[in-house]
Amino acid sequence: MTQNTDVRIPAARLRAYMERVFAAEGFDGGEAAQIADVLMQADLFGIESHGAQRMMYYHRNLASGSAIAGARPEVIRETPVSALIDGHFAMGQLCGCEAMRLAIRKAKQTGVGICAVRNSSHYGIAGYYTLMAAKEGLASFSMTNTGPIMTPTFGVEMMLGTNPIAFCMPADPIPFWFDASTTVVTLGKVEVHAKRGRPMPEGWTIGGDGHACTDAAQMNASILAGEPGGILPLGGAGETHGGHKGYGLGIMVEALTGVLAQGLTAPDMQGAHGDHTSHFFLAFDPAMFGDPAQIRAGMSAYLERLRAGARAEGCARIYTPGEKAHEAMADRLQNGVPVEANTLAELRQIAAELGVEAL
Amino acid sequence: MTQNTDVRIPAARLRAYMERVFAAEGFDGGEAAQIADVLMQADLFGIESHGAQRMMYYHRNLASGSAIAGARPEVIRETPVSALIDGHFAMGQLCGCEAMRLAIRKAKQTGVGICAVRNSSHYGIAGYYTLMAAKEGLASFSMTNTGPIMTPTFGVEMMLGTNPIAFCMPADPIPFWFDASTTVVTLGKVEVHAKRGRPMPEGWTIGGDGHACTDAAQMNASILAGEPGGILPLGGAGETHGGHKGYGLGIMVEALTGVLAQGLTAPDMQGAHGDHTSHFFLAFDPAMFGDPAQIRAGMSAYLERLRAGARAEGCARIYTPGEKAHEAMADRLQNGVPVEANTLAELRQIAAELGVEAL
Repeated sequence: MTQNTDVRIPAARLRAYMERVFAAEGFDGGEAAQIADVLMQADLFGIESHGAQRMMYYHRNLASGSAIAGARPEVIRETPVSALIDGHFAMGQLCGCEAMRLAIRKAKQTGVGICAVRNSSHYGIAGYYTLMAAKEGLASFSMTNTGPIMTPTFGVEMMLGTNPIAFCMPADPIPFWFDASTTVVTLGKVEVHAKRGRPMPEGWTIGGDGHACTDAAQMNASILAGEPGGILPLGGAGETHGGHKGYGLGIMVEALTGVLAQGLTAPDMQGAHGDHTSHFFLAFDPAMFGDPAQIRAGMSAYLERLRAGARAEGCARIYTPGEKAHEAMADRLQNGVPVEANTLAELRQIAAELGVEAL
Repeated sequence: MTQNTDVRIPAARLRAYMERVFAAEGFDGGEAAQIADVLMQADLFGIESHGAQRMMYYHRNLASGSAIAGARPEVIRETPVSALIDGHFAMGQLCGCEAMRLAIRKAKQTGVGICAVRNSSHYGIAGYYTLMAAKEGLASFSMTNTGPIMTPTFGVEMMLGTNPIAFCMPADPIPFWFDASTTVVTLGKVEVHAKRGRPMPEGWTIGGDGHACTDAAQMNASILAGEPGGILPLGGAGETHGGHKGYGLGIMVEALTGVLAQGLTAPDMQGAHGDHTSHFFLAFDPAMFGDPAQIRAGMSAYLERLRAGARAEGCARIYTPGEKAHEAMADRLQNGVPVEANTLAELRQIAAELGVEAL
């Protein structure tokens, strides 16, 4: 969300800053540009939690050895339609791009490519990688596990990550671009409410006692400390509103990432050296099923139909997934990327520590 | 839910009845057994909305020509990893089994198989087909579109189906078996509340005016009439509790079914001849990524860990997806399948109309 304290920074300037920083962290030019591109896409799409705001997090991970600048992801098992990749604790963005590029190549050769990655680290927005496939006319999934933050239905221990599912399908004027955690909200939303001293809506989190918790500051502290309680699965507490569905989707993502790649599952991530994140990428060619232009037109027509449907009273517009992001990008490319004052201070600190030019 | 008016019928007797009925409807012995097996699996798993209770629905569809007894699904496009199938309005169970068998065969040959089906009809529980793959040691997805019942976020027109996602991954003692609609609830739950004259919890449905609706009888009638209002996406109304995520997942399912198979999308299903349902099946071999026994053990261990987690106050147990279904099956195999009095009357009527032995 754009705040009053935000400064608008031209996208090219912010990107150049990120590239300088990652070069100084020890990445070669191509790698620094790649990592910056993933972060910039988040900032351009208005997903500020995953853009410049994460620079300090990555800076600390590189300092602690959680992520390693010299590491290179390695394909350790391969078939014409699949690959298993060991990230060797390289930056998640490098692991993710390498894996999705490979999935795309396989999809172009055989029709489908599935790549599982283990021993990676935080890879930014899951949906970045599906855009890579969409640019090649392919449909794709991208999923990742994360450290534990979600409580199981009827449980109070955090045993699942935010475990996002991203899916993208070519369409016009923009692709159908879906990227969502399987929790009700991400930690970022809890943090924002905590910072503003505002209570959270009921149904976002559960306390260690198993009752609804609306105290954002308390919940934020308890999550960071790994104490009982946590963020609820999509659908909320219990089963009445389908919380077991969000919980099940969360396990599905863990099955396709940590389990399939034989990395760590969420409960083991806490305290482990490195993030040990696992990812899953699947790309396939719609042309296997018919004229790709016709399938693309069918997707576009359905999305247009959804947008043109009758609206609920007081609702100005019906969105389809990806629209808000692409509109934010048009705004940010023209008017600059909003960067929050605290983040700006962090970016200055990183520049000073690395001895590179600040923003 | 087992009611007081339910009669317990031995599974073998119920199955034999179903096979008699479908044989009398014009299916050959193998087909009748196949359709009955899908319905029986639902009844055994305690998903009574999709078992014997659906017999009258299928009986009427076959009478009206919505589904055709002599029709055979046909592969109209194929690669080593994929197939597009035209169902020619055969029963959805026959289309689904044919498509998943083909996906399994391809997965065994190449590592992965993706089959899209159009011009099918209601295929029963999505999760039936993923069990077929799990029995072969494969991981798999099964999805289907349905007639419109879900309203988009901020909209009041039903433009998406219940659009379930089923996913299954081999594990012990039972597979990880997930099968859930992308709506908060299915129509069945609205019907049950209407029949009992009970209000629904807020957050299940939205009225034509865009406000919460808790009147089950009114909502049930309005949905059947195709009037504005409908069932909310998983996550509920608006975006506060992630309703846009359930909505996005619903579109994803439509993209992979109606759009990819170039069949009808939900808004066009109303009033169209036949159900025109489309399905999506994807099976893949975990052995591409490592020792399948080790991956299976990893899945089992993670599920066990979830079940053993700290419970919320007043909650007796943490379930993992598939457990309730398998426990219901153990009960029903021993004690018979509960059949509701109204359903029993329908089954007698069908038998009388077809001139076959009733239950």
